[in-house]
Amino acid sequence: MKTHAVTLYDTTLRDGAQGEGVTFSMEDMLVLAKRLDQIGIHYIEGGWPMPTRAKDVEFFREARKLKLGHAKLVAFGSTRRARVAAAEDEGLKALLAAHTPAVAIFGKSWDLHVRDVLRVSLEENLEMIRDSVHVLKKAGREVVYDAEHFFDGFKGNSEYAVSTLLAAREAGADWLILCDTNGGVLPHEVREILEAVTPRLAAPFGIHVHNDGECGVANSVTAVRMGARQVHGTINGYGERCGNANLCSIIPNLKLKLGFDCVTDAQLKQLRRLSLFVSELATKPPRDEMAYVGASAFAHKAGVHIHAVERNPKAYEHVDPEAVGNRRRILVSDMSGLATVRWKAEGYGLKLDKDDERSRKILAELKRLEAEGWQFEGAEASFELLVHRVAHDHRPPFELIDYRVAVQRRGAGEMVSEATLKVRVDGTEEHTVAEGDGPVNALDKALRKAVGRFYPALADVHLSDYRVRVVNPQAATAARVRVQIESTDGTDVWSTVGVSSNIIEASWLALADSVAFKLLRGRRKK
Amino acid sequence: MKTHAVTLYDTTLRDGAQGEGVTFSMEDMLVLAKRLDQIGIHYIEGGWPMPTRAKDVEFFREARKLKLGHAKLVAFGSTRRARVAAAEDEGLKALLAAHTPAVAIFGKSWDLHVRDVLRVSLEENLEMIRDSVHVLKKAGREVVYDAEHFFDGFKGNSEYAVSTLLAAREAGADWLILCDTNGGVLPHEVREILEAVTPRLAAPFGIHVHNDGECGVANSVTAVRMGARQVHGTINGYGERCGNANLCSIIPNLKLKLGFDCVTDAQLKQLRRLSLFVSELATKPPRDEMAYVGASAFAHKAGVHIHAVERNPKAYEHVDPEAVGNRRRILVSDMSGLATVRWKAEGYGLKLDKDDERSRKILAELKRLEAEGWQFEGAEASFELLVHRVAHDHRPPFELIDYRVAVQRRGAGEMVSEATLKVRVDGTEEHTVAEGDGPVNALDKALRKAVGRFYPALADVHLSDYRVRVVNPQAATAARVRVQIESTDGTDVWSTVGVSSNIIEASWLALADSVAFKLLRGRRKK
Repeated sequence: MKTHAVTLYDTTLRDGAQGEGVTFSMEDMLVLAKRLDQIGIHYIEGGWPMPTRAKDVEFFREARKLKLGHAKLVAFGSTRRARVAAAEDEGLKALLAAHTPAVAIFGKSWDLHVRDVLRVSLEENLEMIRDSVHVLKKAGREVVYDAEHFFDGFKGNSEYAVSTLLAAREAGADWLILCDTNGGVLPHEVREILEAVTPRLAAPFGIHVHNDGECGVANSVTAVRMGARQVHGTINGYGERCGNANLCSIIPNLKLKLGFDCVTDAQLKQLRRLSLFVSELATKPPRDEMAYVGASAFAHKAGVHIHAVERNPKAYEHVDPEAVGNRRRILVSDMSGLATVRWKAEGYGLKLDKDDERSRKILAELKRLEAEGWQFEGAEASFELLVHRVAHDHRPPFELIDYRVAVQRRGAGEMVSEATLKVRVDGTEEHTVAEGDGPVNALDKALRKAVGRFYPALADVHLSDYRVRVVNPQAATAARVRVQIESTDGTDVWSTVGVSSNIIEASWLALADSVAFKLLRGRRKK
Repeated sequence: MKTHAVTLYDTTLRDGAQGEGVTFSMEDMLVLAKRLDQIGIHYIEGGWPMPTRAKDVEFFREARKLKLGHAKLVAFGSTRRARVAAAEDEGLKALLAAHTPAVAIFGKSWDLHVRDVLRVSLEENLEMIRDSVHVLKKAGREVVYDAEHFFDGFKGNSEYAVSTLLAAREAGADWLILCDTNGGVLPHEVREILEAVTPRLAAPFGIHVHNDGECGVANSVTAVRMGARQVHGTINGYGERCGNANLCSIIPNLKLKLGFDCVTDAQLKQLRRLSLFVSELATKPPRDEMAYVGASAFAHKAGVHIHAVERNPKAYEHVDPEAVGNRRRILVSDMSGLATVRWKAEGYGLKLDKDDERSRKILAELKRLEAEGWQFEGAEASFELLVHRVAHDHRPPFELIDYRVAVQRRGAGEMVSEATLKVRVDGTEEHTVAEGDGPVNALDKALRKAVGRFYPALADVHLSDYRVRVVNPQAATAARVRVQIESTDGTDVWSTVGVSSNIIEASWLALADSVAFKLLRGRRKK
């Protein structure tokens, strides 16, 4: 391991929140800061504490009470306004009022921006940079200077772009950050520009890039190889437009491939969990195909790959999934063969011989359902039930006779949702009714009422996620929908699926499987 | 523009279909091949025509009837099995039976794989490569030789890895493709390895990489700069695990940034449409943050960016969005200020002065709703209605009195969904009832029945997409859901949103906005 440190600078709370569809409440921000600290992030940019952004101001006030073990909080802002003394600038005053150990300010390095956006002279912009850094340093802050649009600026007017960095350095900036704000630079350009610039800096520098050419991670890694010692990014790559450089890929690339010991092994193992946590906070569905941390990152579907991975995992895995807290998955799909079915069944405690005719029956049923829009890749519990059902005529613990769900809205917006349900449990007919927050919630309650009397273990079970996807979106409301439910009893988590052209029926199928799976597992444990 | 060509090789239909959750029907495959041809792809890998993969065999039979203008179809397979003469090998025979102008076969270049997966001697593997290429060339095919795991193989045993390429070349392969099958290689490694290898090849070579380190696009672009003249990838980057290198980013990077004239300007303008089309075929929701082609790729949310982009688009856009068929968007969100509201309102034909108190009222209403889980970033029509409602007391064309939706399932699985609805339209009370494929479809029909009598223009409107997302998934079925609906009248497309803890009510709100927006627009056009 190389001992020279790379420091990790997270801007999920600031740049990340500028991503489309990403919003964090103040509580979210505090919880996330704590988590970022635990995983070993060195700098946490918490927001832009301007009077017009009350949430960010409030965050820094509350964040002071967090007991961070390791990370420094950073307040973000910009250089002073034109024709205003730095000491009188409202933005800089607000920045200092956030009372963080470090502050970041961005300044312009692209002459086009100075002329067209700021509308000041090139010299005045240099003054603005110098003054602003100076005021912050005088107040005792560690100063991170973000040279906005540095790469585009360098391509347009290289001498001017470099002179903005030197202005910040002269005024005492601790870090000079080269930013690719528009996100369009390519890795060879990063290399060539850094080769030209960094010998002139004689100061610690860092890299902050966006992902508009889908090269954000590569550009960041390239810069670190060229000597950058602070790397900016966000969890899951959230951020304006195409997002920021994704720390969930950068961190393992640096640690596992380039030997930069930026987080501990134990912290790296938390990476997938952190990624899921942030996507939950942002209420964005996790991207399964994400490098390292995605649910599909070590999921094997093609027959040849599955075969080879069984013989030697290195055959189709670039790193050990456990290093980042992920795991290997073997997918069942219409590409699956009998070997996959046998392999999965064995995992469920069902040994099928090579010519056992049941493997073929399971595979046929799987392919029939997938053709109808079912998908078991993310609903292992439903697949396990399918295997048992087909393989040994597994009797479900309850049988549906019929149900009825009604939703009524009265004038002022008052809503009533009611479900009535008739099921047969162990030969007894149960007829229940329940109200809920919506039709699915009502149905769920009616089912628990009916079956829970016989199986008290159900009391611990609750749904932890509910997802709906239209399988053939072209047909709109008459389309087929796939409902996926995640359930937990506090210890285990399992996923089930239902498909129907009726959303209530699709939900029912997934709910029924969820309960059936819990009861199956309970029986097996005895 | 550089005149030396780079050829584009698409493997969406083969490698792409190995992505989790991606499945194409045979009809999908044929339609997609046609579209890939139109956008200027040079080689289309259509699948692996093995007897056990009936869909792929069938595809090549049907694909012969496609009149492709430009692209060559490629059938995919592997080198012969061990201890079988190439002419007798079932796989190679199946490959030739596909009757494509070109074929691709992969062979092993990593000694670890030869020993642990193939379990043959290193020399036998070289024989397998030579024989297989030879048989295919003798049959008159253009042969693309995929050196599977080339980069990992080179790191393990560089001489052996190179010798596998030379074996393929000796036997007459037209293209030698360096593959990063495990997807973990970094751009500087691509550069260093290509520098060492390509002078020894003396043959046209290409690049095929996966995205497991989130460097797939960067690695492909790096290889093209180093002389690769065939670049493999998939639309949207679909593929096994973290996917293949994404052609939707590679093509514009090559054309707009490196001057490789691989597709025409007009074809490049089709890129976003193709990306959406493929995500529809795969029934995967489009990834908004995708570089170049995503809905968010040129969407501006932060106030400073919006401000600057208005002054000069180059300020925060790395390329012109129209070059790839995309467009600039200004987002309304809780980060929006009064300027954004005024800017949007003006687009709706409503001029608000700087101190018009209505801007403030609109902004307050927007922030209140967003705090409740509404999101207008992807539902512009609902936002436009909100603006009119708040700004000039816009009277909706109809008013809901009440509705009732019932879903019933009887024993054998027979489903009935019925909606009754009471609305006031132009002072008249309408009471309608309708059955549908599900509760939302029934409600939609009842609404059209009630309002359509007064506004015949509604007859052309239908829903083109319906999406549901749980806003706070932690609360599961009792959680708040956001329904987004896309509607079209054949000419225009508009999106609306509804939020409620009840999925029926959330759907109702989005449906009602959809109809109201159509009527508003119709009125304005007069």
